[in-house]
Amino acid sequence: MNSSLPPWRSSIARALHRNRSLPNARYVQLATIDSNLRPQNRTLVFRGWLEPESKIKLVTDIRSSKAINLLADASPWAEACWYFPKTREQFRLGGILELVTAASSNTSYSQARQAAWEQMSDSGRIQFDWGTPGANRSDDPQDFNPPQPDAHQPSANFCLLLLEVRSVTHLELRGEPQNCYLYELVDGEWMIRSINP
Amino acid sequence: MNSSLPPWRSSIARALHRNRSLPNARYVQLATIDSNLRPQNRTLVFRGWLEPESKIKLVTDIRSSKAINLLADASPWAEACWYFPKTREQFRLGGILELVTAASSNTSYSQARQAAWEQMSDSGRIQFDWGTPGANRSDDPQDFNPPQPDAHQPSANFCLLLLEVRSVTHLELRGEPQNCYLYELVDGEWMIRSINP
Repeated sequence: MNSSLPPWRSSIARALHRNRSLPNARYVQLATIDSNLRPQNRTLVFRGWLEPESKIKLVTDIRSSKAINLLADASPWAEACWYFPKTREQFRLGGILELVTAASSNTSYSQARQAAWEQMSDSGRIQFDWGTPGANRSDDPQDFNPPQPDAHQPSANFCLLLLEVRSVTHLELRGEPQNCYLYELVDGEWMIRSINP
Repeated sequence: MNSSLPPWRSSIARALHRNRSLPNARYVQLATIDSNLRPQNRTLVFRGWLEPESKIKLVTDIRSSKAINLLADASPWAEACWYFPKTREQFRLGGILELVTAASSNTSYSQARQAAWEQMSDSGRIQFDWGTPGANRSDDPQDFNPPQPDAHQPSANFCLLLLEVRSVTHLELRGEPQNCYLYELVDGEWMIRSINP
């Protein structure tokens, strides 16, 4: 690990390692706020870190509610809740979401989107060409049987979703009493405090 | 199952049964909105249903952020994301939260709070008398070693948290293509539609 990484990165790396036998240890629940000011919450797959800022990489379809809300400027705030079943610890990662679409003019973001597409499985990639998510179920089987997309040419619907982390709460349920740590950005520096669980 | 139950209840009952070997199959991630209009998201234990309205029972400490936000009328809206690892299915349950404190004047709610307290384990009950959640870590070990509370007399900090469900999205990741069902309350009746995943 690079010493310039935020101090909570090593705790998450350790949890990922210790829970590596569980596929769902890479699933996070992402809470956002929609245009009606109601929370939305869904499970997404952690796709790694965008360096050097330690942004969490997720992917989404531009036709999904979270992408639509971000494009409509509903609210960029989000909180990811990441529970590790084997070690019984939870990270709450609050921050700001950014959506990287095919139209992004940020070169490093576009490169990260391209790389994320290339790292998807074939079965993951094809879903971005399925019928519109959330619409009434398509009757036409062809809507779920499009041509297999090019592994190097992202679907126009494919978006990278970046979470820029501003605060982290790490709760360890093992321990008597439980340990809980709060990491906060203060004047650009990460401060850590031990808090009551 | 009673035929007057909402139609999504049987799907959740089946998921709970099929995932019963996993303790974390009873964990849900609850998203709420705080007074700064930012989402908060944390893991809570499903404590069963409040009948006959099929409200989801959760418990919380009156000193926790979610209780404080509800008491401050920040927003009663919430969405629980419930992922079942073994059967690979997700329920998103959106609705309205109600907090049942020691001061509740609703008799059936007070009885439900009392019953929820009695169903807690000793180690669960004692946490409601620990030092204030989220405050700087108490130096005094006594803050984590209070007298064991009475199993029949709820701590004054103990609250029942009820989620009145207004919409449910059920996604089955197994299946080619995946199945997804949306349940919505329309004029007091539950309507179900099959939608694209």
